Amino acid sequence: MPRRTFSRRFLAGGAVAAAVGPAAVGSAVPAAGAPAAAETAPTAKGTVRRARAGGEVRHLKMYAERLPGGQMGYGLEKGEATIPGPMIELVEGDTLHIEFENAMDVEVSLHVHGVDYDIDNDGTRMNRSTVPPGGKRTYTWRTHEPGRRKDGTWRPGSAGYWHYHDHVVGTEHGTGGIRRGLYGPVVVRRKGDVLPDKQFTIVFNDMTVNNRGAGETPDFEATVGDRVEIVMITHGEYYHTFHLHGHRWADNRTGLLEGPEDPSRVVDNKITGPADSFGFQVVAGENVGAGAWMYHCHVQSHSDMGMAGLFLIAKPDGTVPGHEPHHPPGHEHP
Amino acid sequence: MPRRTFSRRFLAGGAVAAAVGPAAVGSAVPAAGAPAAAETAPTAKGTVRRARAGGEVRHLKMYAERLPGGQMGYGLEKGEATIPGPMIELVEGDTLHIEFENAMDVEVSLHVHGVDYDIDNDGTRMNRSTVPPGGKRTYTWRTHEPGRRKDGTWRPGSAGYWHYHDHVVGTEHGTGGIRRGLYGPVVVRRKGDVLPDKQFTIVFNDMTVNNRGAGETPDFEATVGDRVEIVMITHGEYYHTFHLHGHRWADNRTGLLEGPEDPSRVVDNKITGPADSFGFQVVAGENVGAGAWMYHCHVQSHSDMGMAGLFLIAKPDGTVPGHEPHHPPGHEHP
Amino acid sequence: MPRRTFSRRFLAGGAVAAAVGPAAVGSAVPAAGAPAAAETAPTAKGTVRRARAGGEVRHLKMYAERLPGGQMGYGLEKGEATIPGPMIELVEGDTLHIEFENAMDVEVSLHVHGVDYDIDNDGTRMNRSTVPPGGKRTYTWRTHEPGRRKDGTWRPGSAGYWHYHDHVVGTEHGTGGIRRGLYGPVVVRRKGDVLPDKQFTIVFNDMTVNNRGAGETPDFEATVGDRVEIVMITHGEYYHTFHLHGHRWADNRTGLLEGPEDPSRVVDNKITGPADSFGFQVVAGENVGAGAWMYHCHVQSHSDMGMAGLFLIAKPDGTVPGHEPHHPPGHEHP
Repeated sequence: MPRRTFSRRFLAGGAVAAAVGPAAVGSAVPAAGAPAAAETAPTAKGTVRRARAGGEVRHLKMYAERLPGGQMGYGLEKGEATIPGPMIELVEGDTLHIEFENAMDVEVSLHVHGVDYDIDNDGTRMNRSTVPPGGKRTYTWRTHEPGRRKDGTWRPGSAGYWHYHDHVVGTEHGTGGIRRGLYGPVVVRRKGDVLPDKQFTIVFNDMTVNNRGAGETPDFEATVGDRVEIVMITHGEYYHTFHLHGHRWADNRTGLLEGPEDPSRVVDNKITGPADSFGFQVVAGENVGAGAWMYHCHVQSHSDMGMAGLFLIAKPDGTVPGHEPHHPPGHEHP
Repeated sequence: MPRRTFSRRFLAGGAVAAAVGPAAVGSAVPAAGAPAAAETAPTAKGTVRRARAGGEVRHLKMYAERLPGGQMGYGLEKGEATIPGPMIELVEGDTLHIEFENAMDVEVSLHVHGVDYDIDNDGTRMNRSTVPPGGKRTYTWRTHEPGRRKDGTWRPGSAGYWHYHDHVVGTEHGTGGIRRGLYGPVVVRRKGDVLPDKQFTIVFNDMTVNNRGAGETPDFEATVGDRVEIVMITHGEYYHTFHLHGHRWADNRTGLLEGPEDPSRVVDNKITGPADSFGFQVVAGENVGAGAWMYHCHVQSHSDMGMAGLFLIAKPDGTVPGHEPHHPPGHEHP
Repeated sequence: MPRRTFSRRFLAGGAVAAAVGPAAVGSAVPAAGAPAAAETAPTAKGTVRRARAGGEVRHLKMYAERLPGGQMGYGLEKGEATIPGPMIELVEGDTLHIEFENAMDVEVSLHVHGVDYDIDNDGTRMNRSTVPPGGKRTYTWRTHEPGRRKDGTWRPGSAGYWHYHDHVVGTEHGTGGIRRGLYGPVVVRRKGDVLPDKQFTIVFNDMTVNNRGAGETPDFEATVGDRVEIVMITHGEYYHTFHLHGHRWADNRTGLLEGPEDPSRVVDNKITGPADSFGFQVVAGENVGAGAWMYHCHVQSHSDMGMAGLFLIAKPDGTVPGHEPHHPPGHEHP
């Protein structure tokens, strides 16, 4: 497609939510007075930015809203809900207070994976932590650093690629809320973790990608050499296998090998089921160059039905070799 | 529910089998004269118990029996069969002789994962290692420590979260036996492995938990600070994703991070398929406190149909905050 | 079955392709003048062969052909196509040029996982890298060693158990080509990786093993003490769990533990989905001895429908204890 069209589409839909980077997160949380989550300033050849130390107490507003077409979404401002919801990025040791408002006419909640919370922040009806129509409440999420317990064992830290979702719309497990789009990514970093230049969130939710069906699935854009982070979440009913052409990642905590001794498998295809999440960083086009690199579910009927999109990696001059206004399988641009 | 009711229920059903700790296993194997599998005596603040050295030769009686409602189970004594069957706990280097009696009217067997056995202990009809109605035989399982092979490569030890099951009832793969409840957990520890205070076994067998359907699924009890081991096994026909609220584990051999260099992913949700098994230890309520923490399959229709239960973590005074006689989703107590 | 019959069958079908060892690969690539992929000569007690250094530029011819019964296969020579296709074995740093010829009457392609290639070697219609009926083209695959990037992060190498498959027959994701047999294994080794004595490829493709249905699934032969490598690939529509009786492997890059500090889980059962691949080496019969050891999908209906075969491990005298002309479940020999 013409690049102009692509960019417009890219900016219009769910991919925006999927591309909130560390700096943007910083600016979206002004109440916390948090600087961008980096120790060193701009990305430059030969350097990487790394996660700051944790320990901040941050405040965020979040809204649950109805969206066109029967969808629902989370957003940081009223009228700005997206699918997936906004990226929440923390460093181990941070605490996040989320002032949550239910701008819908049905009960909703916010249930999170991976981080610490008291039972009354569970986001379940059973634990009385849902929010009625028009209601407000604060959810508090905490994170912690790894360390040695008194008994000598090692306590893992909170770092990981996690996610949040509704746990009450439709059923007491939030099946209706999740189906309509009430989910989003959470990344908890360890101090010193490598920060990406760009972030994309890909959610295989039933037969959609980010609740977008065949022909409407998101593409993602980068330039050769960008350090791109992909957060991959699965929701719904089916198992999937996430495959990315031309790029691989380590099947471990960071998606990055720590060094020559790291025994983790390097993969380019991974089976996932509902509520699984993982993430990784790739250097766009490393060893393979620019191009329109497909990502897709590798369950054959799923890809054939359109669970596929493009990782468009441009040359420094902005062109993507061989990429013209034609379509990946099951993927049609308006 | 009233605690009294909960406790009665807890002790009445499959959860008993799921809660046989190391000491109980020791006492269930008097023939071997084995002391409890610990080097130091009672659990105390600031210490952990660790697995003894292996090398013991142990003897166990096991029975396959019919249970009410068309179910079948394994037990250590006649009339005491449970679903799941009894926890078998070994240390690398141990040998276990199981005097097995088929107290049923159909052919049955005992097939084990993970440990060493000669082909005539395979538990399959093909290898003539099933047991006719009313018959007896001895199955011998061996385990071994890791070590360097003569050729310089590293030989893994037997340590792991394994399991046993029938391999002949209904079909030559034991589909009928497994469906009716003929399965149980095996834990092989390495010398020095951290021992838990409590153990629970959770088996997702088709749409049941430990062969208990919606509304009858087991809950599990602990007190804040208990070191709880969960052994998770899948059986049957479907894939599942195991999710536990408020707690996480390392996706590696022990479910525990070995230290700051361990690259294993920490997860709270994991896809599993039939005969997969894994295990982990959590410190109950660590960083999150007491509460009625759900565990459930995160495939949305499965949780909606009742594949859910509670990990009830009490304060030291025995109360579970916010927990009253109401029900988790799809989970009703009589 | 009589050994003679077994051997004939073994050599007649797909298992041939599954058993192309390192030396055979060497001889199949004479154009590259590559010696066998080992530093030391024959396998001997107390030694292992290890992968040579990479950096070779190799040339290979490959053909896509129709096979009887509506199947399709890849082969290194005309008329020699097999299912799975030939094992492609590389060492990190190698480059492989594949002169590919489409000997069929439908468009076909070669898409590979794990290794490096420019976008015009993608094997997809979208990237104009398919081959018309009767057509030829060269696909170039590169591999690279791990190393430190300029920015200080660690770049993974290409080593892994990968695979190739068609991406255009039937659908734009190659669903028809894969179903008919257009797939094969790729192993990329790291310099110094342990080499096996024998290799077998097991592909769970829908309800078949290597496109062979119930009663026709392949068996695999070894002698106690052989270092056997199994490459396991999944294709098609369904998830499976791969289980091997009496043997285990590490769930990491090589399937081998690197030493006592390697935290990888050791497993004998693993969930996999379409396009997942993994591999491992076992010492045949280690700790368990000779026997007819089953491998099968552990999804109960799949094994019952015949997704099962035998890993026949003979004593040094060539006999397999207890193995006579009878059949594994759902497995009948002609």
